[in-house]
Amino acid sequence: MSRQKVQKLPTIRRLPTYLHKLTEMQKAGLTIVATPELARYMNLAEIVIRKDLAATGVTGQPGVGYQVGELIEAIRRYLQWNSVSEAVLVGAGSLGSALLGYEGFEECGLKIVTAFDASPARIGSTVHGRVVRDVATLADFIREHAIAIGIICVPAACAQEVADAMVAGGVKAIWNFANVSLKTPEEVIVQREVIAGGLAVLSVKMHRQAARGEEYLQ
Amino acid sequence: MSRQKVQKLPTIRRLPTYLHKLTEMQKAGLTIVATPELARYMNLAEIVIRKDLAATGVTGQPGVGYQVGELIEAIRRYLQWNSVSEAVLVGAGSLGSALLGYEGFEECGLKIVTAFDASPARIGSTVHGRVVRDVATLADFIREHAIAIGIICVPAACAQEVADAMVAGGVKAIWNFANVSLKTPEEVIVQREVIAGGLAVLSVKMHRQAARGEEYLQ
Repeated sequence: MSRQKVQKLPTIRRLPTYLHKLTEMQKAGLTIVATPELARYMNLAEIVIRKDLAATGVTGQPGVGYQVGELIEAIRRYLQWNSVSEAVLVGAGSLGSALLGYEGFEECGLKIVTAFDASPARIGSTVHGRVVRDVATLADFIREHAIAIGIICVPAACAQEVADAMVAGGVKAIWNFANVSLKTPEEVIVQREVIAGGLAVLSVKMHRQAARGEEYLQ
Repeated sequence: MSRQKVQKLPTIRRLPTYLHKLTEMQKAGLTIVATPELARYMNLAEIVIRKDLAATGVTGQPGVGYQVGELIEAIRRYLQWNSVSEAVLVGAGSLGSALLGYEGFEECGLKIVTAFDASPARIGSTVHGRVVRDVATLADFIREHAIAIGIICVPAACAQEVADAMVAGGVKAIWNFANVSLKTPEEVIVQREVIAGGLAVLSVKMHRQAARGEEYLQ
């Protein structure tokens, strides 16, 4: 179970990218997409594309490709993005503002209903259409509005305190952008975003590429 | 080769998280870390921890654990983070500002030397100690300073134009935060960050957890 989850992580991470591309194709009036086209877009081998999409239960038609609409539905169903989950965001600094301004979340089934901050200068202001509330009222707000997801964009030193308030309010999941590991009850899902994770992948690829270049020189 | 890369992606993504934890432990004066402790911190099975760390060439001592200092060195060597790569960032909006303000990059071998923007209101200003320059001068700056990495934080509609200028200037890699697939020459590495990727993982975990809860109820 645990092993299976680990192996599927890259597939799950990639599904929103497929979804974005397929939605654009659908808007452009296209109904069929061939595997080689998706492979070029994703910069992956065709076999990886087929395995990724098979995870959603859809198989393409050999020599033809995939039905765009069917694939969109299958990915949204797999990710449970057909229903909307309400979220609150804590920490209305630059990262928090960037997330509040991101327009792609609604199609991911995520609705950030409001923001919280501890700074008197920010409380009461509006960021991308969302009112910034006093973080002291966080747990009560989550409880009263049955909010499912808490998004943490505060400095690492304050993150655990915010997580505790989110758990007290009753969130099911925390999306943690602070660079710290949170202690939460087992039933609360924590997804930690480590910005350096992508940088690690870039770094390894870049140095592999450089090594290959040197091989060519020999 | 391609298959191997895909399977190792989660490991590479996780290495910075280990590095962060190990660096904290080293600062606290600890010299040995046991696998179960890392497993709790990473919220992963011990077997996954051992496999992840084996990728860096280090094996723990049974019944004792890993040497903290040795592990830090091995991870930094694997990620090529012992040397510093210079980067420029384009798009000094909220996301760009968040990245410019992130203090963890220096220990990842990344130095963002300056920022660029197209907005006259931002050009000439300073964001987290970095001057914001006119994006019209981007390619020349990259060429003159032999910048290795370009970071794109502009809206999707402008991202390809920025990428073209980065390629013209001679970057080796592009870290792309715009929600769009870039066309670049094969020798330029592109690492695309899809913010919804983490949300997809959170969503799948959250609904698996909910399904498990329902099973308990039956």
